[in-house]
Amino acid sequence: MSDLPSPVLIIGSGLIGTSIGLALRRTGVEVLLADADAESVETAVRLGAGRSVRGEDVPTLVVVAVPPRHTGAVIAEASARWPQATLTDVASVKESVLDDAVSRGADPTRLVGGHPMAGREVSGAAAAVANLVDDRIWVVTPLPESGIEHVRSVHRLITACGAQPVEMGAREHDAAVALVSHAPQLLSSALAGELDAADADAVQISGQGLRDMTRIAASNTALWSDILVANAASVADVLDQITARLARTAQALRTVDADPSAPGVIEQVLADGVSGQARIPGKHGAAPSAYREVLVQIADRPGQLGELFSAAAEAGVNLEDVRIEHVMGRPSGLVGLFVRPDAGETLIEALRTRHFDVR
Amino acid sequence: MSDLPSPVLIIGSGLIGTSIGLALRRTGVEVLLADADAESVETAVRLGAGRSVRGEDVPTLVVVAVPPRHTGAVIAEASARWPQATLTDVASVKESVLDDAVSRGADPTRLVGGHPMAGREVSGAAAAVANLVDDRIWVVTPLPESGIEHVRSVHRLITACGAQPVEMGAREHDAAVALVSHAPQLLSSALAGELDAADADAVQISGQGLRDMTRIAASNTALWSDILVANAASVADVLDQITARLARTAQALRTVDADPSAPGVIEQVLADGVSGQARIPGKHGAAPSAYREVLVQIADRPGQLGELFSAAAEAGVNLEDVRIEHVMGRPSGLVGLFVRPDAGETLIEALRTRHFDVR
Repeated sequence: MSDLPSPVLIIGSGLIGTSIGLALRRTGVEVLLADADAESVETAVRLGAGRSVRGEDVPTLVVVAVPPRHTGAVIAEASARWPQATLTDVASVKESVLDDAVSRGADPTRLVGGHPMAGREVSGAAAAVANLVDDRIWVVTPLPESGIEHVRSVHRLITACGAQPVEMGAREHDAAVALVSHAPQLLSSALAGELDAADADAVQISGQGLRDMTRIAASNTALWSDILVANAASVADVLDQITARLARTAQALRTVDADPSAPGVIEQVLADGVSGQARIPGKHGAAPSAYREVLVQIADRPGQLGELFSAAAEAGVNLEDVRIEHVMGRPSGLVGLFVRPDAGETLIEALRTRHFDVR
Repeated sequence: MSDLPSPVLIIGSGLIGTSIGLALRRTGVEVLLADADAESVETAVRLGAGRSVRGEDVPTLVVVAVPPRHTGAVIAEASARWPQATLTDVASVKESVLDDAVSRGADPTRLVGGHPMAGREVSGAAAAVANLVDDRIWVVTPLPESGIEHVRSVHRLITACGAQPVEMGAREHDAAVALVSHAPQLLSSALAGELDAADADAVQISGQGLRDMTRIAASNTALWSDILVANAASVADVLDQITARLARTAQALRTVDADPSAPGVIEQVLADGVSGQARIPGKHGAAPSAYREVLVQIADRPGQLGELFSAAAEAGVNLEDVRIEHVMGRPSGLVGLFVRPDAGETLIEALRTRHFDVR
């Protein structure tokens, strides 16, 4: 049982709202659900995310999990309807959404913004999973007016869901997500957009790099349009910086035979990319090197993967992660098993004993 | 036994050269190996990629698999040393490399360019695998002067390696790889480069989208600098187009409140990305929808993956591909099993019988 005051009302039974409900129900918290779409609530209830809210219910905490452009209005309504409740949301943009809520009359002393850093390529209640935010970072953005008891309640909500609260200012949050999420979305879309008019021959020879770079381009256009517009200035700033870097690179490529400084410009862009990429944390926020990868070459026949995972389990080694190497969308037969460094030798010995081809 | 005339000499015992040797040895072709670095040849020989070339050997076909900037010179040397041999290479840029070879005296009637569309995140002979190019596209770029028997020999080489030859002009090839490989590399580097000077808080909240978009930014700087410079004009053309698209988007974001046409610009960039992404072929060049994905939620404890794969094997279902869903670098417990559409129901039934949580 969590120390989180309940009941918690979750408005919006989409992927995130329903997943939060499932996470809270694991710890016995009473969860109430509401959504403009009755079918979504039914799905969420059937999955076990809580029960449908009733007129007499008085939630102590309201989580608004509706699309960003409706979030401000829904927060303001909830503020008026339940004048004691702590109010939070999960919108991926914070400053404009919280400003909108307050300008519509939401009580700023009870309002604390939030943004769980989790998502999936699919949406809707049916795609919800109880562990969606487990060990995830969940950014908390209090307003200057937010009461400390309400900030504490939101921290308790996050901990009860199994996530890790990280506090920052709303503006700081928006600049950060512009860099790590919103601008990358547009880069992916812009690159994929070039394929739209490309020769079939060119598209035919595309490889795994392009596939990775364009995966998120397949995202929901309406949802992303909302997100980008809500964070427009921060996203434009990051795009300007990236555009300038790319323009500098194109210029260097055009003058590479004539300008002795041009090769250095190209190398610097690549080198900055290497050092920037190395800063991205690995699983659970650990450094990418926190796990050891054991590479195993397996034969391309049924049952081989099963034998490999069974062998690891029999050796008592817990796999932290698994990577199946893909070359142009095809598994290459090379499987990477990520384990804690001290388990690496045990796993390698166990696999070699069973005649696996460990690299 | 292949109908490929042998012996085949592979100059360059890196990842690609050694993998080609391993692939040819599978079919019994006699393979000779050479590399300026004796240790690389030793590794390749030990792996079974062929034997070290000797002074008296007379290869019928020479495959030059050295870094792009040395490829032209090495082709020209090989042309002079073995005046009957078919000459090909594996450089990822074709027009400038082939021009360089001919300008250094290589015989254009025996020269046929090549580019196997395969690679790995690691390099060197030790990382070589026999199936690296299996079912891969291998672009063949004959010169106008190339003799038809030499073009045929290169086609036979590619088929013997298990790959699929696709013929196109050298210039057409270079424009295509600029779009699907070289410009994406610079986009990834430019994005990752922005992280280099970013706040630690911002980097901390990065998710799977950023991770995918920056994976190739970790590539070898020297190798990529060579590739980009060799294909400079084509890459600069693609970068200019992408930069213009991003600049248009940034402008729309800045004027979104004032200009009624701005939201439409942003939506169009996202929509073009969706349709461009959908053109990328799936495994074996098939449409992405050629396989059915069965989603299974598994518990986060040792042995679960093993039980899942064993269950699929016992049901006689061949897994075409496996995807373990990651949320911020952590496996989420959701595993996607890709099977032929007609095997989907069999797999689902077999897994449900064994009490797996099939979505």
